[in-house]
Amino acid sequence: MPGIGPKSAQRLAFRLLQDERGAAQELSEAVTVALERVGRCGRCRMLAEGELCELCASQARDDSQLCVVESPADVLAVENSGAYRGRYFVLMGHLSPLDGIGPAELGLHELDLLLAEGRVREVILATNSTVEGEATAHVVSELARTRGLSVTRIAQGVPFGGELEYVDGGTLAHALTGRQQVG
Amino acid sequence: MPGIGPKSAQRLAFRLLQDERGAAQELSEAVTVALERVGRCGRCRMLAEGELCELCASQARDDSQLCVVESPADVLAVENSGAYRGRYFVLMGHLSPLDGIGPAELGLHELDLLLAEGRVREVILATNSTVEGEATAHVVSELARTRGLSVTRIAQGVPFGGELEYVDGGTLAHALTGRQQVG
Repeated sequence: MPGIGPKSAQRLAFRLLQDERGAAQELSEAVTVALERVGRCGRCRMLAEGELCELCASQARDDSQLCVVESPADVLAVENSGAYRGRYFVLMGHLSPLDGIGPAELGLHELDLLLAEGRVREVILATNSTVEGEATAHVVSELARTRGLSVTRIAQGVPFGGELEYVDGGTLAHALTGRQQVG
Repeated sequence: MPGIGPKSAQRLAFRLLQDERGAAQELSEAVTVALERVGRCGRCRMLAEGELCELCASQARDDSQLCVVESPADVLAVENSGAYRGRYFVLMGHLSPLDGIGPAELGLHELDLLLAEGRVREVILATNSTVEGEATAHVVSELARTRGLSVTRIAQGVPFGGELEYVDGGTLAHALTGRQQVG
């Protein structure tokens, strides 16, 4: 589990089995219920309790923008930024041929069906700024372009509040090549 | 001194005065020599041993681009990124009215003279992505625009190798609003 090493795991296990058997029972039931209730959104593949996730079910979102991200945690990150009012599509991973993760596993067929509906005008590639994320973004952009849609990539550059002196060379190189006209 | 707190300072002082009196003498002389030799470049205000710094004296740089940064350390950072072949102008700080740092202290008059020569076509604003850095960038951009020059700002966004999940909301908001057309 993320953030829990062998030592922490052992401590948690002893606490649950020794002192907190009631809590252990509750935990087990809560996980069972969560497993039963939480599935995938039929539209964007986000984790969801019903057939559609809240974001897909909402009437207040802009149908013309589709933000493609790698994971449910990324949806929350973009939502928390407060800068986006469109829809999402969650790949649930990134291209990784060695792990057997290809276009089918990332739901690119479902994505294509969604784009075929014709409501999306702009596909925003918000995969991670890693090598795998870039490769995944490239594949998605090819797909969107065959449909004649506008494709954009979130900006890479100096983080908000960042000082040049402490930014790595790769980021600074991206910030320079991606510089934008002012005014 | 940056990175040296009271404890470290005391340890260094005792070492120099107790066991390393020879080294202390050398240090004193080295600092004196450095103070005598290192001044400011007459052109870009970078630290320099001669009248001009190496970057201003070089024939291999592109005169049409001028990258405006806050400090000498930022010049090194941009150089180390390997993505830039133009000239620099070092403000030696950022706008900070409360500390008495205004346009005169940042050498904006010298910058204006340099732009008046007519060789610079694009001014690249590479001040820090902080509130003070943005305010400083704004003032420099006004100056460059009265000369009719192209003004660009280095990109703000997700750092190279960064994962959305661990990026702060402000950065992600900038990355979204600064998204760029692909292909």
